[in-house]
Amino acid sequence: MSYPDYSSQGWQNITVSLDSPVAIVKLNRAKQRNTFTNGLEQDLVAAYELLDLDDRVHVIILTADHTAPAYCSGAELNSGWGSIYSKEDELHGRHTHRDAGGKVTLAIFRCRKITIAAVNGHAVGVGITGLQLPCDFRFVWAGAKLALPFVRRGIAAEAASGYLLPRLLGYSRAVALLLTGGTYSPDSPLLQGLYYATFPNREDVLPAALAFSHELAANTSQTSIAWSKALLWRGADSIEGQHILDSRGIADLVSRGDAAEGAKAFKERRSVKFTDKVSKDLSDFVPWWTELDVRQRKTKL
Amino acid sequence: MSYPDYSSQGWQNITVSLDSPVAIVKLNRAKQRNTFTNGLEQDLVAAYELLDLDDRVHVIILTADHTAPAYCSGAELNSGWGSIYSKEDELHGRHTHRDAGGKVTLAIFRCRKITIAAVNGHAVGVGITGLQLPCDFRFVWAGAKLALPFVRRGIAAEAASGYLLPRLLGYSRAVALLLTGGTYSPDSPLLQGLYYATFPNREDVLPAALAFSHELAANTSQTSIAWSKALLWRGADSIEGQHILDSRGIADLVSRGDAAEGAKAFKERRSVKFTDKVSKDLSDFVPWWTELDVRQRKTKL
Amino acid sequence: MSYPDYSSQGWQNITVSLDSPVAIVKLNRAKQRNTFTNGLEQDLVAAYELLDLDDRVHVIILTADHTAPAYCSGAELNSGWGSIYSKEDELHGRHTHRDAGGKVTLAIFRCRKITIAAVNGHAVGVGITGLQLPCDFRFVWAGAKLALPFVRRGIAAEAASGYLLPRLLGYSRAVALLLTGGTYSPDSPLLQGLYYATFPNREDVLPAALAFSHELAANTSQTSIAWSKALLWRGADSIEGQHILDSRGIADLVSRGDAAEGAKAFKERRSVKFTDKVSKDLSDFVPWWTELDVRQRKTKL
Repeated sequence: MSYPDYSSQGWQNITVSLDSPVAIVKLNRAKQRNTFTNGLEQDLVAAYELLDLDDRVHVIILTADHTAPAYCSGAELNSGWGSIYSKEDELHGRHTHRDAGGKVTLAIFRCRKITIAAVNGHAVGVGITGLQLPCDFRFVWAGAKLALPFVRRGIAAEAASGYLLPRLLGYSRAVALLLTGGTYSPDSPLLQGLYYATFPNREDVLPAALAFSHELAANTSQTSIAWSKALLWRGADSIEGQHILDSRGIADLVSRGDAAEGAKAFKERRSVKFTDKVSKDLSDFVPWWTELDVRQRKTKL
Repeated sequence: MSYPDYSSQGWQNITVSLDSPVAIVKLNRAKQRNTFTNGLEQDLVAAYELLDLDDRVHVIILTADHTAPAYCSGAELNSGWGSIYSKEDELHGRHTHRDAGGKVTLAIFRCRKITIAAVNGHAVGVGITGLQLPCDFRFVWAGAKLALPFVRRGIAAEAASGYLLPRLLGYSRAVALLLTGGTYSPDSPLLQGLYYATFPNREDVLPAALAFSHELAANTSQTSIAWSKALLWRGADSIEGQHILDSRGIADLVSRGDAAEGAKAFKERRSVKFTDKVSKDLSDFVPWWTELDVRQRKTKL
Repeated sequence: MSYPDYSSQGWQNITVSLDSPVAIVKLNRAKQRNTFTNGLEQDLVAAYELLDLDDRVHVIILTADHTAPAYCSGAELNSGWGSIYSKEDELHGRHTHRDAGGKVTLAIFRCRKITIAAVNGHAVGVGITGLQLPCDFRFVWAGAKLALPFVRRGIAAEAASGYLLPRLLGYSRAVALLLTGGTYSPDSPLLQGLYYATFPNREDVLPAALAFSHELAANTSQTSIAWSKALLWRGADSIEGQHILDSRGIADLVSRGDAAEGAKAFKERRSVKFTDKVSKDLSDFVPWWTELDVRQRKTKL
């Protein structure tokens, strides 16, 4: 297998660098306060799709330049809302439009690696819903101003935030965050539980996320991570169903190299050396769920 | 469109007053500790159905007289449990009974406006499940004694609390609250996240809720609120489905006046002046879900 | 009805004693750090099935010897992963394996009595997922080291933890706990809300759980508890459906002895004396849900 060269993909809105086995995706629109555009969406979706398939990569950090005015200050509104539409939207009808923030949410959500947002600046709207909520972990600067101001702009909970936010934090907090549209600090009671770690200085967020990533990459199994994410987010809708699913997972995993190595290292009281890869050691049983094809314009609920 | 006169509806158990665009629904059974009866249920259901349709109304506060013995001290038990049955129940069979608390829960839950409970006194049973849980926000007096004592009375989690409580607070807390049936203060760890704001004095709860309501009413879009509530509570059961739903929402909303005004006001760094109304500017796409007809006596699961 | 004698069941891995109406299930593998084996699974499943049917029992506490090295230090790994398979697994194919931890989870989860885990020592893996998460309440020693290290051993979220953990604590915390596989204290922000009570000394956990159990047993209705647990965990997937379910519950319960006694005791301001039993006073309407037959080897999702 040959691996992609992330420096030659022609992405204008992001840079992707490898600190193997950790990949860093950095927003590259500091002069525009890292506002969100269709171009940024396309670069991010392409990058996460490649990184998901790249066996060198175990953890993916999404971040911004810590000297930028913001981690992401929301959708680019300079040309008004009309700029959300693509040529395809006009061809098939605007009601078939697919929200750009949601496309990024799905690309990160579907990624089978560990995903982290290193939020080293202010974040607004899709800068939270698309660029934080779908990640497995969120690291944040204590001084970040965080807002989901959709109801104050005349729009609504986008980027699948109506799905993710109540699941991450419970409905009581999710409703309050979305219906006030207010600006909150990471230490707000409404955000309790959302951030894994908070840092007083902007420049410390990414290094901490990197150290955390390398520890996880060294000591966790890629296939275990992929299975665990699937069991959590694509689980059965009954506890009996979940038991059947994870039984299948255990039966598959214990037949592989990483589980043998895990048990051996545990017995020998030494660090693990996992080698199983998502590309070839993940059971054909995964995925067991069927996904709606959101790219197909005719797909409805 | 002519608007209802809330003072001439003949309601005995509540008063409804308009501090436009905020409506205040006040329980009017202070002498009976604001206990819950079928009469109170009928008045509340009628009021929320009217308020939902009234374009003058953006926010609805439910409260009690702060000098009353309680915000609501639970179901009226003076004549025993027999009083829960209506003539219709006897006609169609008691197994077709529909819980009165649940009717209020549904009326508030379905309301497309911002709903707030200003809990300026003690609250027991349906005084929490029917008169707090379905609201978007809960303001509370710090001294309130709060109890869900169903298991200590020989009954069970009513008013759809088995649905709402675990979603609002997570199952760990919901199970503990309902299975102990204990009495808790607003600062109990078990209630963490349920109340948006807490106040040391009973008389301060409603004024604070009013100020909050007027700020929200002035700065949020009615249609954005209705869409956001629907996306949160009537969302898809997969993240892909949610992406399709909220894409449809964004495409609809950006074609309306409020989104244009939202973007314009943002650019001009001024306050918004939203004018879209739920009665005429909410997409025909809403509701996209099908509701069980709970009034039909034959409806089963 | 004759009741089982819990001392003559031939269980090697647990002891079950009755402090009526509270039953104490104690892990009996202190010398093996209470590691989890197929034998322990079989004893626990048998015990919870008997206790569920025993009308003398209102509350069930699961605990360990507080002088044992651990409450449960996870799966027994001495003979490697191969030991998870039974003769039946080999006969029907390993893909039909049913995870032993999940069998215990289901046995406790399905129990209609109040279930408590008195975690008076360290707990790892299935010592949390199978022996804590399915319980209604968790009491814990403040010094307990708690870990879900599946991804560090090459396996994945088992014992239906992918179902229970996000529902108990929300997805943000559940994902962090399972994907780090780290070791946490009961006071970790990631575990907030999971434990009902925490105690500085190991020897105090069980006595506190016992006192709590006797208070609940004296003052709550067995049938109310069974209904409440079912309404919480087997509720409808819409709020309207939940209203129909709990209306049926209320209509049934108010026709029984416990509800009459509950209202009477409330009026007379005295303690309750509930007598309804799960074996004969629980409505035929329960269960209203259909469970996947996980024992049937061919059952798939």
